[in-house]
Amino acid sequence: MELKPKRTEAERLSYGIHRKGLRDRKMRLSLNVARRFFGLQDMLGFDKASNTVEWLLNQAKAEINRLAKEKKK
Amino acid sequence: MELKPKRTEAERLSYGIHRKGLRDRKMRLSLNVARRFFGLQDMLGFDKASNTVEWLLNQAKAEINRLAKEKKK
Repeated sequence: MELKPKRTEAERLSYGIHRKGLRDRKMRLSLNVARRFFGLQDMLGFDKASNTVEWLLNQAKAEINRLAKEKKK
Repeated sequence: MELKPKRTEAERLSYGIHRKGLRDRKMRLSLNVARRFFGLQDMLGFDKASNTVEWLLNQAKAEINRLAKEKKK
């Protein structure tokens, strides 16, 4: 049985290796964006910021797909 | 001249008093949401997560306004 190499704290907290290096999954919003974001979260009745981001990603899906297509051109 | 009362660490990091108490402006995304979120951020060429959240809020504006109207009813 092989032992997995221990991951560093940065690796555990990041979402993976990225061309800009390890990227933190924790983020900090500006005051103005935080007000809008948490206002939305309250309206949705969500508990976790991650769920609110997911909701936003789903809302913007059409525009995100359009961007992805343009990038491929 | 009056001195402002010193703010606690939690107050400095939060976006304000909230009915659920002080809310942290820092957030942590689930792995799956982080992948989608930072994939979008790369496509947009943004530097800060806050800018990406702002972009998402703007994309979802119509739906957010619809929600806000429904809540008022």
